[in-house]
Amino acid sequence: MRSFLQIQTYHDPDSSNKDINRDYEGVLVAGQPLQISLENLAPSLDTFVTFKTRGEVEVYSSTNQLISLQTPVPVEQVSEISLIARTFSDRLKDRSLEITFHTGAGHQLSQATLHLTCLRICLDVDADRDGIIEENNPHKKDWQWGINGHGAVLLVNKDCDVVNSDGQDNDVQDNLKGLLDLKDLSFMIVRRVGLKNLPDGCEVYLSVNQDIAKRIRIYDELDKNGDELIGAKITKAKIIDTDRDILLAVEGLSYPDADFNGIVEITLNLMKDGEIIGSDRVVFRVAPWMMTPNTLSPINVFVSRLSNGSNEEFIEELRKVVGKANAQLDPVPFEFHQDDPWMRDEIEIGYTQGPGRFMHVILDSPRDRGLDHLAKRHLMGTDFGYIIRKSCEEVTKLDSFGNLEVSPPVTVKGVNYSFGRIIFGGTRAEIIEKTRRKLKVLRDFFFAQEIQAPFEIFSDWLSVGHIDEFMNFIGAASPKGFKLILASPDKCYELLKRLRNEGHSQALLRQGKQLDDKPADISVADVLDNEELALNNQRFQKYINWNREVLKQELDLGEEDIIELPTLFRDDGEGRAKSFFPNTVNMVVLNQHLAIPKPFGPKANAQCQFEAYVKGVLEPLGKECHFIDDWDTYFREGGEIHCGTNTSRQPFPQKWWEIEPKFLK
Amino acid sequence: MRSFLQIQTYHDPDSSNKDINRDYEGVLVAGQPLQISLENLAPSLDTFVTFKTRGEVEVYSSTNQLISLQTPVPVEQVSEISLIARTFSDRLKDRSLEITFHTGAGHQLSQATLHLTCLRICLDVDADRDGIIEENNPHKKDWQWGINGHGAVLLVNKDCDVVNSDGQDNDVQDNLKGLLDLKDLSFMIVRRVGLKNLPDGCEVYLSVNQDIAKRIRIYDELDKNGDELIGAKITKAKIIDTDRDILLAVEGLSYPDADFNGIVEITLNLMKDGEIIGSDRVVFRVAPWMMTPNTLSPINVFVSRLSNGSNEEFIEELRKVVGKANAQLDPVPFEFHQDDPWMRDEIEIGYTQGPGRFMHVILDSPRDRGLDHLAKRHLMGTDFGYIIRKSCEEVTKLDSFGNLEVSPPVTVKGVNYSFGRIIFGGTRAEIIEKTRRKLKVLRDFFFAQEIQAPFEIFSDWLSVGHIDEFMNFIGAASPKGFKLILASPDKCYELLKRLRNEGHSQALLRQGKQLDDKPADISVADVLDNEELALNNQRFQKYINWNREVLKQELDLGEEDIIELPTLFRDDGEGRAKSFFPNTVNMVVLNQHLAIPKPFGPKANAQCQFEAYVKGVLEPLGKECHFIDDWDTYFREGGEIHCGTNTSRQPFPQKWWEIEPKFLK
Repeated sequence: MRSFLQIQTYHDPDSSNKDINRDYEGVLVAGQPLQISLENLAPSLDTFVTFKTRGEVEVYSSTNQLISLQTPVPVEQVSEISLIARTFSDRLKDRSLEITFHTGAGHQLSQATLHLTCLRICLDVDADRDGIIEENNPHKKDWQWGINGHGAVLLVNKDCDVVNSDGQDNDVQDNLKGLLDLKDLSFMIVRRVGLKNLPDGCEVYLSVNQDIAKRIRIYDELDKNGDELIGAKITKAKIIDTDRDILLAVEGLSYPDADFNGIVEITLNLMKDGEIIGSDRVVFRVAPWMMTPNTLSPINVFVSRLSNGSNEEFIEELRKVVGKANAQLDPVPFEFHQDDPWMRDEIEIGYTQGPGRFMHVILDSPRDRGLDHLAKRHLMGTDFGYIIRKSCEEVTKLDSFGNLEVSPPVTVKGVNYSFGRIIFGGTRAEIIEKTRRKLKVLRDFFFAQEIQAPFEIFSDWLSVGHIDEFMNFIGAASPKGFKLILASPDKCYELLKRLRNEGHSQALLRQGKQLDDKPADISVADVLDNEELALNNQRFQKYINWNREVLKQELDLGEEDIIELPTLFRDDGEGRAKSFFPNTVNMVVLNQHLAIPKPFGPKANAQCQFEAYVKGVLEPLGKECHFIDDWDTYFREGGEIHCGTNTSRQPFPQKWWEIEPKFLK
Repeated sequence: MRSFLQIQTYHDPDSSNKDINRDYEGVLVAGQPLQISLENLAPSLDTFVTFKTRGEVEVYSSTNQLISLQTPVPVEQVSEISLIARTFSDRLKDRSLEITFHTGAGHQLSQATLHLTCLRICLDVDADRDGIIEENNPHKKDWQWGINGHGAVLLVNKDCDVVNSDGQDNDVQDNLKGLLDLKDLSFMIVRRVGLKNLPDGCEVYLSVNQDIAKRIRIYDELDKNGDELIGAKITKAKIIDTDRDILLAVEGLSYPDADFNGIVEITLNLMKDGEIIGSDRVVFRVAPWMMTPNTLSPINVFVSRLSNGSNEEFIEELRKVVGKANAQLDPVPFEFHQDDPWMRDEIEIGYTQGPGRFMHVILDSPRDRGLDHLAKRHLMGTDFGYIIRKSCEEVTKLDSFGNLEVSPPVTVKGVNYSFGRIIFGGTRAEIIEKTRRKLKVLRDFFFAQEIQAPFEIFSDWLSVGHIDEFMNFIGAASPKGFKLILASPDKCYELLKRLRNEGHSQALLRQGKQLDDKPADISVADVLDNEELALNNQRFQKYINWNREVLKQELDLGEEDIIELPTLFRDDGEGRAKSFFPNTVNMVVLNQHLAIPKPFGPKANAQCQFEAYVKGVLEPLGKECHFIDDWDTYFREGGEIHCGTNTSRQPFPQKWWEIEPKFLK
């Protein structure tokens, strides 16, 4: 940037004309010193000079001393001076600097007069995060985490980036649709530059770099058509109304991702004759997408209402639990699910947030089965944002969001994960052939949000491959604040052996139920005598134990933080696991109310012993266990209540920008 | 509101037909108990009854005990029951209560089945003041001050009420103008009622009372025309889309005033067959208009640029001070002031604020001279709101806003006025004939804002009648945090007498200046020898002293909190006071920089002794005194720098709703 006024040599070396008075024009930028060299102006360095100003402008020496006006000084002492003005001009050339050269005896040799116009280049945002744009916040140019941090926040109103494996984004051509759209936009003010008609050659531009232009849109408040000033291929916009403050609305288009760290820099430049002579800059951070753990209160529970009516009773039983939890049940009609019951798998309902702004945001899975249109057609509306990540790579069951969880807030070795940690399942190559893993576009997206520090565990040993088949979280009044629930074949065998020892070996599991078109009843004795089942479950237990260790380490859990529920798996024929009876781990947690798949366990004293076990470990934590029969619609099809529902939850009371995430690079 | 289901007598007393099975339909309101009497249903009170439910509904006895289902109970024990459901129905009659009467031996006598649909009536606002609408905040129905208080806040976007003395408001017919308008609106959500087609006879209405309808407008987010749902003569709006959340924007039209306490109640009612059967309610408080004391940092200083160029030099001198204070000078062109120089008198620049929302708001004086169009035409735009109060009563000079100040924050006898106290001048009837007072519409408006607890002092002794002619405030690092500056004829006489004693009796006041087309020079001796002038100044000093006592009491000031500056007044011919020389009290305070009318006092040791005095008392407080010649344009016309300028300032860092104003009724 120019901070040096070039003054052309006017002094004719062949002449010694002492009466030359020359006039120059210059532009000052408010608050920005402008350096001037007297070397070419002065008749010689051994003369004296006197400065005189008109209007709001101060003259400093090269050592930053205010130079006394109308007092002769030897030129050699002030061969470099700088001018500073702090207020914009409302009229052209409203201030001036008169430089008079004279002899020691006071005889005038020559005079140069600089006629100056001062322009202000100031772009303002809400850098202190109170929802209100302040005046020229000194911290507006950088972004700091923390309660005492600073930096403006930008929300993504609607993220429609479709990232393909070739790295190309689809362009989205859109303009502001109506009043509602503006609600979640951030604002920015271009402060009055000064006067309407700028000095010759001066222009003011707002600009972003080419990458940022794809990731935001900037709108002028007064454009009724809602056409963007900046966005897509427009990286630069001229500011026309330079004699008033201009309010601009800014919209984010991209969440942070592998190729975008979320930082948006916007620059305001004053150009003179094609050169930048003044500049201001603001920085926004795009708010991350965040997930909500089970410890946050539920708002709405979504479930597909299937067209054959097969889950009507299930819905009404679930509704009772939802009602007790003070939430609402939202049964989704056929047109939005096409009889796809796996509500968990198609969407993850998270949120995004800025100062005074909040939006639930649905991450749409690339799974794209019957529920594919739910997010866009049904849920996306008032305050529901939308994200999708797609890929040319093959989508597997691991890309469904039953294979995506977030822990409650947790401190691990002194590092505070105030918003919990995202967990998703992948593979361990050494274990199973033809391994599966979550798509890179999804993994990249989760990691790029930063704030919930994701980690990957091992779910590929399951036929469906979702972590919600063997783990879950519930809140607890323990020092940790929550318990990790794990499926446990070992615990199941232990329980069944005890039952046999107590004389209940003929008690039936899965009594009166059908599986694979056959009666599913099986006695305690028959289960225990099935060696292949035992061997498989030992294998599956090992995989769970491997995950158990990873989870203990990544969440810093003690044994007292883990609750194991009796579970059995069977081999799906390809070495992977399927539930043997409805899997109680796959519960929905709604405050203290737990909607748990009815396990149809063996009865003793007229009581299902699996239910009794679950109640025995969860009721002491203040939980109410509601066992719901999900056999026909869900269990038989390979899932449970958690897989068949989705829950929007209250956001964290804490704001993401108020933490200082030590775990971030 | 109905909470009792009327079930018509179905039992035919002439018959003892025990097989009668009757069906009824009913509507439940989510979360609201519905009482049912069995007296008319039961064949007799000595029979037994068994309840059975379908769907999410619970049955309670009159003593609030959950009634066991499918268990016979003597009817007399449960002659009154109540039903409660918590989740809305997404289908008609999705739940039911079956009431079976039978003998003790179990012989069925009759049966009644209630087919029930449950609707939710829930209206939500940002009651916790974080800028985000929460779900069913339990405090949404009342409004409490304080950091731990609650209650939503509504901003007045543009107050155009013209209150005439006949009490009639002019109607303002307006709709939303564009995107910008929405920025300062508050939002409200009508939660999903349940299903699209409500049960027969059911309708949901949003409503306000007739008075409130004049004071707000409610807009539907999706109405592109921006026509209001509620406002002016529309007190009621039907909610059509009952199967989704609806976001509504709410705009205030009236600031609190004598006839409006600022509280806005909005009700959502469920009507069935013309009767209200369910209801929810939210309360907003309209944000008050607030003034900014001198202790807040300046943003812009406004001054009329007069067409004859007479104040050009003044503007440039003022600009230098404004620049040092890091503010901007905004010289207003002729078209907006018509050569009216009294920028202070036509407008007062205050602000209004809600969570995450802020607007400078200009109160336009009913003075209405040349500057009348400034506010509406020039300033009102981005983030500048507008208020005017007019009256059929005669407007006097006391209605100008030179006669309106606000103290810095102050604690008075344990009561904390965190935003200072508004002060305006009026009369004391015993003192002067033909008394003047601020218009009642203005006084009422100031008092109705509550938060800056106004009080009235005595300014009618001045010809122009403005309190800024004898008082001012500057910040100070004292326990009080500020000093009251008072004009003091006594101090002036003291100083002049000292000068005479020191041999400067021929030193000239007002040297080289013109007043009333005559040279204004006058010697120290001549001033001291003028008995009439002395007598008048004794009288004026008494009035100042009277105000001094009121200010000491109302602001709990000690003598150490008051600084007196030498001032002289002269009689205007009608017994009222005019300044004798430029009045240094009428300074503009810009952070530590003070723009002070150059007093043209008598010189001793080549130094103006008035300036020396002012510097002597203000520089120790860290202030920089900048004396500016305002003689010709301002002083000669009856005002000074403060009268000729206006200043927008930063808002208080504290939010008005976070205080607990003990002084409020």
